[in-house]
Amino acid sequence: MRMYDLIEKKKRGNELSKEEIEFVVEGFTKGIIPDYQISALLMAIYFMKMTDEETYNLTMAMANSGTRLNLSAIEGVKIDKHSTGGVGDKTTLVVGPIVAACGIPVAKMSGKGLGHTGGTIDKLESIEGFNTSVSEDTFIKNVNEIKIAVAGQTANLAPADKKLYALRDVTATVDNISLIASSIMSKKLASGADGIVLDVKCGNGAFMKNEEDAVKLAEAMVKIGKMAGRTTMAIITDMNQPLGCKVGNALEVIEAVDTLKGNGPEDFTELCVVIASRMILASGILGSDIYGEKQENLDKAVNMVKEKIKTGEAYDKFCEFVTMQGGNVEVIKNIDLFPKASYIEPVVYNGESMYIRQIHTEDIGKASLVLGGGRETKESVIDMAVGVDIVKKIGDTVKNGDVIAYIYGNSPDKVTQAKDIILNAYLYSNEKVNKPKLIKNIVI
Amino acid sequence: MRMYDLIEKKKRGNELSKEEIEFVVEGFTKGIIPDYQISALLMAIYFMKMTDEETYNLTMAMANSGTRLNLSAIEGVKIDKHSTGGVGDKTTLVVGPIVAACGIPVAKMSGKGLGHTGGTIDKLESIEGFNTSVSEDTFIKNVNEIKIAVAGQTANLAPADKKLYALRDVTATVDNISLIASSIMSKKLASGADGIVLDVKCGNGAFMKNEEDAVKLAEAMVKIGKMAGRTTMAIITDMNQPLGCKVGNALEVIEAVDTLKGNGPEDFTELCVVIASRMILASGILGSDIYGEKQENLDKAVNMVKEKIKTGEAYDKFCEFVTMQGGNVEVIKNIDLFPKASYIEPVVYNGESMYIRQIHTEDIGKASLVLGGGRETKESVIDMAVGVDIVKKIGDTVKNGDVIAYIYGNSPDKVTQAKDIILNAYLYSNEKVNKPKLIKNIVI
Repeated sequence: MRMYDLIEKKKRGNELSKEEIEFVVEGFTKGIIPDYQISALLMAIYFMKMTDEETYNLTMAMANSGTRLNLSAIEGVKIDKHSTGGVGDKTTLVVGPIVAACGIPVAKMSGKGLGHTGGTIDKLESIEGFNTSVSEDTFIKNVNEIKIAVAGQTANLAPADKKLYALRDVTATVDNISLIASSIMSKKLASGADGIVLDVKCGNGAFMKNEEDAVKLAEAMVKIGKMAGRTTMAIITDMNQPLGCKVGNALEVIEAVDTLKGNGPEDFTELCVVIASRMILASGILGSDIYGEKQENLDKAVNMVKEKIKTGEAYDKFCEFVTMQGGNVEVIKNIDLFPKASYIEPVVYNGESMYIRQIHTEDIGKASLVLGGGRETKESVIDMAVGVDIVKKIGDTVKNGDVIAYIYGNSPDKVTQAKDIILNAYLYSNEKVNKPKLIKNIVI
Repeated sequence: MRMYDLIEKKKRGNELSKEEIEFVVEGFTKGIIPDYQISALLMAIYFMKMTDEETYNLTMAMANSGTRLNLSAIEGVKIDKHSTGGVGDKTTLVVGPIVAACGIPVAKMSGKGLGHTGGTIDKLESIEGFNTSVSEDTFIKNVNEIKIAVAGQTANLAPADKKLYALRDVTATVDNISLIASSIMSKKLASGADGIVLDVKCGNGAFMKNEEDAVKLAEAMVKIGKMAGRTTMAIITDMNQPLGCKVGNALEVIEAVDTLKGNGPEDFTELCVVIASRMILASGILGSDIYGEKQENLDKAVNMVKEKIKTGEAYDKFCEFVTMQGGNVEVIKNIDLFPKASYIEPVVYNGESMYIRQIHTEDIGKASLVLGGGRETKESVIDMAVGVDIVKKIGDTVKNGDVIAYIYGNSPDKVTQAKDIILNAYLYSNEKVNKPKLIKNIVI
């Protein structure tokens, strides 16, 4: 097999076989096939697309390129959850404990954040003592004992994907549905869960800007998951404004705790209920309707979620989880113990009364990044205390002097920069604006 | 300027500016832009094409990437000639002396052969003592003195093209008209001639398999040449069978000498007359109709060529040229002095009487390559004596026992291999077959 012939084959629009795709992935991972041939192939894939079969084979080849987590020692049907990334997305912190409180094992490998979206691992590390670098044995033991564990991705999880993504990132070959879907799913499949609920974000704060593309990505991922024999579904959700109110590591954990106690923002709570209920259905504990095709089963799952919040079991599970991974649970019980920002600066609206029409969500993420809450590069050190608290969201009214957001910062200069970004991120209208629908679509 | 943005721009089908193309070519030549970004751009160019403006700017950027030959010290209008490469193509050896004999300066930089097509430099080096590595000063002096010099391309002629071509060759991005045209024309423009007559080969022995593509390439090259202010035209010629009869270095020089004496094969002689007459017109010595738009001027040029052959002036010029570049002219005068093959093996047709319908021309080139007459890799050493003498061509009849070709070889094994290749290269028909038209089209 010659790499040249495979580039030519794809360039002509022909389907690469399983063996050919494995040859490419293996040769690239081992450094035998040079980057310049891979990037030519990637660009050919961008133009000629990949079939479902090719996409699946690429995913499996990447999933098999490194260590595959063996979760067979965990009893029960393991359910994973993945978000394609958005601003203020602290969903895992809430749905994980809820689902675990239902007795369903949640064994989650999670990434660190880069750019304008944060990572679950970073958020958890804002809790004093919390350790995300647990060994595989401890990870499995924890899930068996308390039904939940969250760990940082091991370096050797789908290394082919890591290397391929780095190349796509510098050759303008990121934006292809098959390549995005296989990148995400290779890591999910290598992480070993039996069922996966995907949250595909869509809007100006997400990678997928419109619903059509988000649905295509969701369909591609669901297809891969099912071809691999996993229960897989995707929820398409709005990311045209930050999720909930808080953006920033400690701030988001605080909002997650509020939500677990039943006091979270309406939109974020709604999302958590939808995702957690789908995870419950996927586990099969409510019967064989794992895709929630019957309303009565959906209702049952939703009630179960609400019950776990209401009784405090979900919150208790979170506390148990924090303790189990070395975190100081006192911080959760008394949020004043979280790292604190030196400055809390209101962002004030000046002008005539208006409706909020649009929020450049990516810019809100960037404001948090500027404050030090995210990583500009892989080496950046995160300031856990900083971030943004969004007060006004789409559809809300504002009048002169209203606070639209609060900035949490540790440097006056950065606060000033963040303020400018936030003020420019808001667009207004004279006419009434409806709140955007949060749950846009479900792909099963 | 960021290379990433330029890849993305081309991927979206937008036109790159002169500055952007210069940035790419300069960055790549200097090794600042990595191969993997260039190959992604090349594949995007393959799919989205380049405009005439982009193609011209790419050509100029590559032409300017190294030394540009300054031929201003040569008196008169310098005319160059270039063939896109075919089997048995020894045209330069004939048209060069004819045109020089008309008093027109021919200052030709020529390449070495690779693969199934031979290079003019290799052919000339089959003449004992012939030196193609002359200094720029000697090159110019020779042209001023005897109106002709042929030298191997200096390493620093359009180095960007050299580097880019090497990358295209391993990333399946060779077959794009703009990239092919700019590669050829960058070297022609850097070589400094005032006028260029292009011979675009077309058929199963050429890079361009069909006339439509050959015309597109010709049009692209003529456009570039004219945009650069050079008189440029292209002749589209048939390469569905070897040109003339002889394939192999010394064999081709012998056929060229025969042709200069007026005893060459009909098809090859016809091609030489057409190309030489166009070069004469391009020089302007017959007046302002440099593109031969009037039949009377074309006729005048053709008569001039025939006259130079008839009077022996063309042959004398060739001898002068050989002597000037250190070659032993006695070899030309007595062809028995050329390197001789140990075996001359007839390839015999067995079967009922037939017409020759088709010759896999590339395979004839490969037979010569197998015999040692060409380069498999850049490092191969060429056997000057070996090759193939084609006896039967398309449209000819064959009966049982007829010799269709002679193989000149120095190893019995290789002769056997070449024989198999040649026998398989011929296809026959019961019905009469017309000889293919040699001159297919002229692009001015």
